[in-house]
Amino acid sequence: MSAPLVFYTNPLSRSGIVHWMLEELAVPYTTEVLEFGADLKTPEYLSINPMGKVPAIRHGDVVVTEAAAICAYLADAFPEAGLAPPLSERADYYRWLFFAAGPVEMASSLRSAGIEPTAEQQVSFGHGCYEHVIEALVLAVKDKRYIAGGRFSAADVYLGSHLRWGMSFGSLEKRPEFETYCQSLEQRPALQRVTAITRQAMEDSGWDMD
Amino acid sequence: MSAPLVFYTNPLSRSGIVHWMLEELAVPYTTEVLEFGADLKTPEYLSINPMGKVPAIRHGDVVVTEAAAICAYLADAFPEAGLAPPLSERADYYRWLFFAAGPVEMASSLRSAGIEPTAEQQVSFGHGCYEHVIEALVLAVKDKRYIAGGRFSAADVYLGSHLRWGMSFGSLEKRPEFETYCQSLEQRPALQRVTAITRQAMEDSGWDMD
Repeated sequence: MSAPLVFYTNPLSRSGIVHWMLEELAVPYTTEVLEFGADLKTPEYLSINPMGKVPAIRHGDVVVTEAAAICAYLADAFPEAGLAPPLSERADYYRWLFFAAGPVEMASSLRSAGIEPTAEQQVSFGHGCYEHVIEALVLAVKDKRYIAGGRFSAADVYLGSHLRWGMSFGSLEKRPEFETYCQSLEQRPALQRVTAITRQAMEDSGWDMD
Repeated sequence: MSAPLVFYTNPLSRSGIVHWMLEELAVPYTTEVLEFGADLKTPEYLSINPMGKVPAIRHGDVVVTEAAAICAYLADAFPEAGLAPPLSERADYYRWLFFAAGPVEMASSLRSAGIEPTAEQQVSFGHGCYEHVIEALVLAVKDKRYIAGGRFSAADVYLGSHLRWGMSFGSLEKRPEFETYCQSLEQRPALQRVTAITRQAMEDSGWDMD
């Protein structure tokens, strides 16, 4: 596809997920770095994402927000990259993309915020509780190099990003199964490029990634 | 596809989303109703969904959990139903499926639980805050009969279910744009069938849906 591809990002955000995805595609794209605060609240940017959040992409005349949606969209839009399974093999792909975007995101966010759902809240919350999410994830990645369909896909980019980020910042605990799964992903040159850029951005900002 | 399709459900759960999706497909499926509590924690069911939650489906030898993932999977697995846009038109489709599965789910869950994120938490939470989610959703559905691609899709099943459920139970406020969007969806015979069944189940359980 020759439509222009624009990546709206801040390296100190969930944008790293999309950055990795873009590097895996090996297609040209332009990057617009937005600073937290005023940059994200301009009328121009709010017309792209009314949430005032990054990441977002523009591909030709379409806009996609939400990191998981961007991964799923790009995988379909650039089939030659082989990051989306064929239609007949999408059960695990969607299952774990949405599991990461819903339950993992909510469990890790609440854990970071020190919010512990009550027993009653656990019944109504889609993710139940942090412990159930962790145990389900352990079963999901155990003895698997990739999360869906026996090959690397956009679901690995998204879930792997959550696990790497969560274990780095303590919002997801370090389990051997997570570390084994992530160690395999670390071999990908696209991720290594993004990690180097993110590490530099964090150092420049005074964050400590380790 | 002739592979057996099994629907694991409890009508007083998010299963109604998948029930509507299945009725839209107009393909045969069998239903296994699981009571809350012990039914969801048997080894047999935990092998399907280790979270011990419904809905889930089994289609032939694959299992899918997470209501949004099930909608996306079924839309792809049964292309003749026309509930998934073509690959070239999936930007809004994925955007709003994942927006509903992530930010809408989290915002409405926290609202129901009476949890109000602090300003600092709003920066790190993917959904920001309830008010931003509502305003983004208003813009998304305003003057649109369908959320993606100009025709009814699995994204309408999923987002529409969130809006109908949220407005019924007060976890999402009633905005005119939401009501107009949902009124159009109410015309669908598949939804009308599911609503009648759910209403009956709720009456039988002593819940009041109105």
